[in-house]
Amino acid sequence: MDLKLYLQTNQSLVDKALSALLPGPEEPPQRLNQAIRHSLLGGGKRLRPILILACADAVGTQREQLLAFACGMECLHTYSLIHDDLPAMDDDDLRRGRPTCHKQFDEATAILAGDALLTFAFDLASRPIQGISADTLLMAVRQLAHDAGIFGMVGGQMMDLLAEHRKVDLGELRGIHRLKTGALIRCACECGARLGGGTSDQIETLKNYGAAIGLAFQITDDLLDVTGDSQVMGKATGKDEINAKSTYPSLMGIEGARHLAQEQINLALSHLESFSSAADPLRDLARYITERTH
Amino acid sequence: MDLKLYLQTNQSLVDKALSALLPGPEEPPQRLNQAIRHSLLGGGKRLRPILILACADAVGTQREQLLAFACGMECLHTYSLIHDDLPAMDDDDLRRGRPTCHKQFDEATAILAGDALLTFAFDLASRPIQGISADTLLMAVRQLAHDAGIFGMVGGQMMDLLAEHRKVDLGELRGIHRLKTGALIRCACECGARLGGGTSDQIETLKNYGAAIGLAFQITDDLLDVTGDSQVMGKATGKDEINAKSTYPSLMGIEGARHLAQEQINLALSHLESFSSAADPLRDLARYITERTH
Repeated sequence: MDLKLYLQTNQSLVDKALSALLPGPEEPPQRLNQAIRHSLLGGGKRLRPILILACADAVGTQREQLLAFACGMECLHTYSLIHDDLPAMDDDDLRRGRPTCHKQFDEATAILAGDALLTFAFDLASRPIQGISADTLLMAVRQLAHDAGIFGMVGGQMMDLLAEHRKVDLGELRGIHRLKTGALIRCACECGARLGGGTSDQIETLKNYGAAIGLAFQITDDLLDVTGDSQVMGKATGKDEINAKSTYPSLMGIEGARHLAQEQINLALSHLESFSSAADPLRDLARYITERTH
Repeated sequence: MDLKLYLQTNQSLVDKALSALLPGPEEPPQRLNQAIRHSLLGGGKRLRPILILACADAVGTQREQLLAFACGMECLHTYSLIHDDLPAMDDDDLRRGRPTCHKQFDEATAILAGDALLTFAFDLASRPIQGISADTLLMAVRQLAHDAGIFGMVGGQMMDLLAEHRKVDLGELRGIHRLKTGALIRCACECGARLGGGTSDQIETLKNYGAAIGLAFQITDDLLDVTGDSQVMGKATGKDEINAKSTYPSLMGIEGARHLAQEQINLALSHLESFSSAADPLRDLARYITERTH
């Protein structure tokens, strides 16, 4: 299969659905809706929603029906970027090649745009889906809230802040990233498998696949901060070194980090062994995680 | 009935449930969990969760089962206070008689504590409730997300910020507050009636009751900012005048505002006419809204 085409097709599917589901830029309050659209519709790999669709495909379902839920996942991811970029947090000026939300608008608007997207994620995720029981959907909504919050992404972000300017070891670093970036990627795979009608075994296996690619994704992020081109990436690079931040390359060296990422991809692929060719997009996505340049 | 005792009993019920449902102060990340507990467990009227319980009682149900959902509503309310108090927003130092979250901890922690509480609200709200169908619960979760977000509280907060330092008329002011404070109070009543097993008529009627007391609540808030004692209120007063903010007293005079609040309470009481004595707490709560001193 042609992964580039697969990604383009699905990014465009998600982009169109997001634009249609969001309030228009002229709807009041205009400034809020424009800030939301600025951050949400300004590019982005759409990795998490695509993982939901691809995991659902791997266990066999109609993908159109899951688009609202998948868009909710992207809203969650984008809110986390908006808040992480705030002056009190990472203080970043550039994101996805455009000014960050608080730079383009202002801090108060960026805080509210993040809050609005986080809330809207649950509005989208809790919409009835034809052919999926309310019990199953409710379980997925609860999973989303769990993995995005204290026990997942937000908890990981707090741990990451607390770890700044001090040396952490590899075990602690993995613990932080298992929550900060890992939880939502794993959650996307688990929810996709669940909403796609997978068996408990399939859900568990795709969750493990998600955990492995999530770690590989973070390692690659750290590597790109050292070796990447800020023009291609659309955000600042070299920030980890400036902030004296412990990262996989700083703890293991560039080669060591590349090796660990590859190990995780192999692990992810091994989780897919029992799946048919319907999981081919997941196989290619796993390889893409470490090969990406942004 | 003795409203004071009713409020105390229910505040204590909600406080205990919140403390038990939240991660403990020693659970990692400690700083995040301590910030959350500082803001959430430091007093508060618990009006919104009590409205959920009282509306469910008015249509007849077992209240214990709704406690997690009711606590979710309080998490939503508290997150909005934490973010509203941030330097980029209202820049307040005092809340519920204690330092605001960013004063006691720091800005990044306060942003994350708010994010965590907003997310945790949906974790709590989506937990299965014995005797309530997943379809009904899902509808309530969606309502919560709708009324807390762009089309409700967050949208209203943005409109409120945009209205600062310019004159707004009474129609616009009502529009702002219908969303900013009204949406969540109305939502509490609607969700309580729905989860309590009310008929569509009862749900609609209690929603209208909620809209009326929500407006009365905001008018009283504005009045207390002029006439209240900051010691009793546990937060700064006189801020609206300093910020040249349009309020009900500034647009209608103190007597005019009091009259409008009383009108709304009478309207709220009239919505309860078809209800039995099971709605007595709601009747007393309506009167309390304008008589409160904090």
